[in-house]
Amino acid sequence: MSVTEQYLLNNEAYAAAFTGPLPLPPSGQVAVVACMDARLNVYATLGLKDGEAHVIRNAGGVITEDAIRSLAISQRLLGTREIILIHHTDCGMLTFTDDVFKQQIQDEIGIKPAWSAEAFSDLDDDVRQSVRRIQASAFIPHTDAVRGFIFDVATGRLNEVK
Amino acid sequence: MSVTEQYLLNNEAYAAAFTGPLPLPPSGQVAVVACMDARLNVYATLGLKDGEAHVIRNAGGVITEDAIRSLAISQRLLGTREIILIHHTDCGMLTFTDDVFKQQIQDEIGIKPAWSAEAFSDLDDDVRQSVRRIQASAFIPHTDAVRGFIFDVATGRLNEVK
Repeated sequence: MSVTEQYLLNNEAYAAAFTGPLPLPPSGQVAVVACMDARLNVYATLGLKDGEAHVIRNAGGVITEDAIRSLAISQRLLGTREIILIHHTDCGMLTFTDDVFKQQIQDEIGIKPAWSAEAFSDLDDDVRQSVRRIQASAFIPHTDAVRGFIFDVATGRLNEVK
Repeated sequence: MSVTEQYLLNNEAYAAAFTGPLPLPPSGQVAVVACMDARLNVYATLGLKDGEAHVIRNAGGVITEDAIRSLAISQRLLGTREIILIHHTDCGMLTFTDDVFKQQIQDEIGIKPAWSAEAFSDLDDDVRQSVRRIQASAFIPHTDAVRGFIFDVATGRLNEVK
């Protein structure tokens, strides 16, 4: 059985006990931007309840143009106001560089990605970079409640980056 | 107290009971791409356990360039093989058009986003569009196990799009 098939079986049990629907706009008026890492369960880590927060995730939890798109929709159309950024220790993005990753792809398939891979070498610096990208965006109206954290995959604790 | 502060209190309880760390590569070799919607708790919906799957999320669960970036890193550097796409009923992306959204922003701040908002008018069609974008990408090596679903926010059930 594929992993996908197992998850579909899990979903049957979930649906059997499901109570819904909830309203579309997030009741906590919060958007979380986090790394896609498998060990960072955003719901458990923050104690998020269903319907409370938008959850935006990508490789690194980086503020890319697509994260700006999602945050713009989240704030402008669905009323969120606070933003929580989460990077984490032992991140895969610390293990390579854009140049090497893109060269490997070019060597293998002959095409070099036109996009940045967004690798980084310092977690705290990249959280601050992400905060600054949000603050610099003309498309995100509410930037007074943006806080950045690093999730420790060994302890489960969120440590704020100042 | 801000919502962020409440979540930080929740995190203290989470960390107190935390057992870790788990390995970096996802043990289920799966990447999930889902909408950021607050009612779509990907962990509960799929029965995902910590450490099993990458979770990539944006407005709509759309395959954007950033989703391609994340999937390329997920498969090429961290060994995932299966991809699960999840859109959902009552999605905010069904409630506007790119043209109107971008014009509203331009009217308000004088700048029109250079990016697509990726609104869509048909859920099934957009899931299929996302599957095709993955299959058409030169940067994603494994595209033989890509399946797309619509999460029903009223029932909690995942319905596959063929």
